[in-house]
Amino acid sequence: MGSNVYIAGVGMAVVGKHTQVSLRDLAAEVVLKAIESSGNEKPDAIVVGNMLSSLVEQENLAALIADHAGLRGISGIKAEGACGSGGTAFLAGYSLVSSGLFNKVIVVGVEKLLERPTPDTTRGLAYAADADYELIYGISFAGLNALVMRYYMNKHGVTREEMGWWAVMMHENGYSNPFAQLRKKVNLETVIKSPIIADPIRLFDACPLSDGAAAVMLVSEKHKKIADTPVRVAGIGNALDSPDLSSRYELDRFLAAYLSTRRALKMAKREIKDIDVAEIHDAYSIVAAISIEETGFSERGKAPKDWAEGRFR
Amino acid sequence: MGSNVYIAGVGMAVVGKHTQVSLRDLAAEVVLKAIESSGNEKPDAIVVGNMLSSLVEQENLAALIADHAGLRGISGIKAEGACGSGGTAFLAGYSLVSSGLFNKVIVVGVEKLLERPTPDTTRGLAYAADADYELIYGISFAGLNALVMRYYMNKHGVTREEMGWWAVMMHENGYSNPFAQLRKKVNLETVIKSPIIADPIRLFDACPLSDGAAAVMLVSEKHKKIADTPVRVAGIGNALDSPDLSSRYELDRFLAAYLSTRRALKMAKREIKDIDVAEIHDAYSIVAAISIEETGFSERGKAPKDWAEGRFR
Repeated sequence: MGSNVYIAGVGMAVVGKHTQVSLRDLAAEVVLKAIESSGNEKPDAIVVGNMLSSLVEQENLAALIADHAGLRGISGIKAEGACGSGGTAFLAGYSLVSSGLFNKVIVVGVEKLLERPTPDTTRGLAYAADADYELIYGISFAGLNALVMRYYMNKHGVTREEMGWWAVMMHENGYSNPFAQLRKKVNLETVIKSPIIADPIRLFDACPLSDGAAAVMLVSEKHKKIADTPVRVAGIGNALDSPDLSSRYELDRFLAAYLSTRRALKMAKREIKDIDVAEIHDAYSIVAAISIEETGFSERGKAPKDWAEGRFR
Repeated sequence: MGSNVYIAGVGMAVVGKHTQVSLRDLAAEVVLKAIESSGNEKPDAIVVGNMLSSLVEQENLAALIADHAGLRGISGIKAEGACGSGGTAFLAGYSLVSSGLFNKVIVVGVEKLLERPTPDTTRGLAYAADADYELIYGISFAGLNALVMRYYMNKHGVTREEMGWWAVMMHENGYSNPFAQLRKKVNLETVIKSPIIADPIRLFDACPLSDGAAAVMLVSEKHKKIADTPVRVAGIGNALDSPDLSSRYELDRFLAAYLSTRRALKMAKREIKDIDVAEIHDAYSIVAAISIEETGFSERGKAPKDWAEGRFR
């Protein structure tokens, strides 16, 4: 195996609407924060995680952001993996360090989803689905997830109230997070009576559109001393499912979440019961439910009951 | 340093107009060829190099292509670096193997530039430039390169005839290549009298739009036996310049080509005079000239004189 990889510093911008800040500004801000918090040493390479800069007619983000952050001449990659672009970039950055090719690599994720009118962004987000088999019918990501949510609730006998507790709990978490976009608590009634986006998905079942950025500095064993408290990456996992729902083995399963969790745990020599904190992708509450089950925190069909009972607080 | 990395197999599609073949078909074809030519063993991961799938409203290419090639469940990254997306993907694939994270990684580059009307593709290609500082003025990539070509020819006293020999020579190379898009020889008069695209760039100074794909299977030391003739990657280099021309240190220099060549040579413990074969990026003949000079094959301002004299035949 390759060398150990450590997180030496981090940078994060407030998630929200940044109409006065360009993509490059938002990204450079967190890159410079991550560099500053890891001893102010210049990185050797940058990996940029991004899916939708094509909406603002900009590719070549590794060069764009490195240059704007004063890092011209370093090496770089833009990594994309739809909603998992941040994790994909982390995998690329991890391997650039672990391979010994580079000692200090900045991994930065950035999106500007509020730069364009909402219909354009909705259309862009659907690029994560299958253009030939799904988008041709005019379906959006909300529509696709609505199909999955209806199927899941019927199959497992999950109630609207049980699903709704996820949004209540996530808003509680956001309330005390200075980087969160929506910093207000909501009650169950507000969630389950909020406007329908794509039945049964309601407003509070869906994440808001955001502008945001976050960065980490990854370093090799011999450079971990640049950090006050270097954090070793114990394990990492990544897996691909089919983009189109109709090809999935089961409509209410995420093969990629299942496999990637097990790969990361195996590499870290840990089991799911050893994990204290998890950040679950919850673009929609149904995505959170299935992800929690695939990782192994809940039995299949039981995540909403578990969170309604307060198990993940 | 990490482990050695070997090329165990390759696959390539004929470059040209593939209106009846989708992006996923074109990519899967060369992925399967590369797998077949390296002992038919399933890869652990895929890296897809692509810049412009957003034109056909499709991202998430690692999942899309892996699934279509029968590789669901493996790990994957889409890597983008504008016109250098193929090399960027190779860097990501190299480090995934060298780090020991994976033993067999497919790296595939694919573009479908003839799927949309030419004005859309021209606009899309300009995403490699700087949206905020350049595209806002309506300039295309041909326009940007025309600025550089005019500056370069004036500065170094290079004639139209000298520049033109590049296209003559490249068409000779393509004539005997079964994968080439334009398989016909041209003479100097045809080149220098061809229609103007963006003065001084003429038709034969510019590459055609293409659909195409190519793949390599990269493997670790212990898996190199799956290939009949594994080829060790002796060195690799990558570097970022500013995307916008106005921020460059000099208008007729490519910092990225200069630095990446030196990094690859240093890693391989070689000098430029040791190199027998080079594939130079020549989207425009001016790009070839400057790239040849930055790599060190010619003195600055001398590449067109060198190729007009037949030095690179």
